[in-house]
Amino acid sequence: MSLNFYHASVPVFVKFLNNLEGLLKKAEFYSQSKNLDDAVLLQSRLYPDMFPLVRQVQIAADFAKSVSARLAGAEVPSYEDTEQSYAELALRLEKTRQFLLNLPESAFADAAGREVVLRPGTAKEKRFASAEDYLLLYGLPQFYFHVTTAYAILRHNGIEVGKKDFMG
Amino acid sequence: MSLNFYHASVPVFVKFLNNLEGLLKKAEFYSQSKNLDDAVLLQSRLYPDMFPLVRQVQIAADFAKSVSARLAGAEVPSYEDTEQSYAELALRLEKTRQFLLNLPESAFADAAGREVVLRPGTAKEKRFASAEDYLLLYGLPQFYFHVTTAYAILRHNGIEVGKKDFMG
Repeated sequence: MSLNFYHASVPVFVKFLNNLEGLLKKAEFYSQSKNLDDAVLLQSRLYPDMFPLVRQVQIAADFAKSVSARLAGAEVPSYEDTEQSYAELALRLEKTRQFLLNLPESAFADAAGREVVLRPGTAKEKRFASAEDYLLLYGLPQFYFHVTTAYAILRHNGIEVGKKDFMG
Repeated sequence: MSLNFYHASVPVFVKFLNNLEGLLKKAEFYSQSKNLDDAVLLQSRLYPDMFPLVRQVQIAADFAKSVSARLAGAEVPSYEDTEQSYAELALRLEKTRQFLLNLPESAFADAAGREVVLRPGTAKEKRFASAEDYLLLYGLPQFYFHVTTAYAILRHNGIEVGKKDFMG
């Protein structure tokens, strides 16, 4: 089996969104066992000017959908960042996975030739040399950065999760 | 340009090892400006039973070399984990990058057909369904997990690094 853009994006994102959901389930279980509001952990961060857990999850999910959509030549759906509970975050992850799984594998056949330009026409426009660079040197590292940071916030708070939960 | 095993491993690992070295340079500069022993940050961790910064860096470098070597059909070099200073870690990262850059791109042409088995013949043997799974669902996430955790340890300690440093 050779590498292709579909295999390097959709199943990867789906797997690690599942793993992220598993991490959040453990956090939710812990919160409930201690009678904590969902916000206690969801608003935790590793440093005051870092994003809290809830935002790390939203951003990870956003990279999964935007990278996959752009490689497939599909429109990137826009989701509001309104989640305040574990239940709402689980719905966000499920909605994201459904979007990914509905992208037809055939739409990725032309990915190599797609031009990827983020924020076109703005001062923060970012043009990638190739779709390959966009996926390998931008999309995947951004995604893993936020999933790992979500893990790190939970771990730092003493939730009993391990790398096995991250890796699935 | 289509995806291939070389592009999805060696240049990716080299880029993020460079970024990791940049993060460590900022940590070293901070340490020196405060007259701290290198060990203060290098032995920092996010939770008592997590690995400290120095180990996160060693493990990230190890995944870079072992994944690339296995895809290239080369022997995985063994490096001792003896680093105790920023200077020694920089050498470790440089040695790892040199190993990666000396792997001929042509050796990755047969990667798709390689059988990857970790710890063969032991109770912890792990056999991958394909080289693709090994890279996409194991090697890259493991690598990013440890680079991001190194970043998170520095960030949590107030070192002025940002996602731009992680992304390079």
